[in-house]
Amino acid sequence: MKKRTAKPEIILVRPRIQVGDVMSIGPGKIDLLRQLGQTQSISAAARALGIPYKRAWSLIDTLTQGFGRPIVETISGGKGGGGTTLTPLGQRLVDCYDTLQQRLSAEAHPELEEIRSLVSGR
Amino acid sequence: MKKRTAKPEIILVRPRIQVGDVMSIGPGKIDLLRQLGQTQSISAAARALGIPYKRAWSLIDTLTQGFGRPIVETISGGKGGGGTTLTPLGQRLVDCYDTLQQRLSAEAHPELEEIRSLVSGR
Repeated sequence: MKKRTAKPEIILVRPRIQVGDVMSIGPGKIDLLRQLGQTQSISAAARALGIPYKRAWSLIDTLTQGFGRPIVETISGGKGGGGTTLTPLGQRLVDCYDTLQQRLSAEAHPELEEIRSLVSGR
Repeated sequence: MKKRTAKPEIILVRPRIQVGDVMSIGPGKIDLLRQLGQTQSISAAARALGIPYKRAWSLIDTLTQGFGRPIVETISGGKGGGGTTLTPLGQRLVDCYDTLQQRLSAEAHPELEEIRSLVSGR
């Protein structure tokens, strides 16, 4: 069997954090919040991720219920006539997640090394 | 505002591993492989996870393409008249993932502690 010489370069570890039976926080919800922070619009964020508006709303609602506090808030006025943005809690959650993801991806894990070997060993 | 006294007990970290641009390996695919190993049937595994058969097949195909080798194989004979099971590579992938998940969940991460605090601080 032909051996590939190079292992795949990048292994990124994106955690899905299961908080007791309260909720799970994973890459999908975090990407949605990040897009929302950038676009200040739930529908624009949903479009950017290719998910229906209702699904985006439901993901945000799950987080709001889980934390018991708003993750997003309405902003009014301005050129665009208002929109929706992250609350400080929502922003802190995104920052926290990103830091964790960066650290998990940077750490040496023997299992990641093994998975890289399994891919390159074909 | 009312403070909850207890932090949520269990935080489980389930990684989604992005292997270069080759594929991603996350909780959904791993749970599917695990169910397949137990039921020896793609349709039974799909049912157990509440996903369509075609989706299950597509997830398995993504892994097969990514590794360039079979993750599942057909078994014949026996009482049930055969079925589908994991190849040694497929089983090794599940084991590898489980070990990584256990270690990530057991490690102390300041960000997980902060997320727990954000949940309990409501």
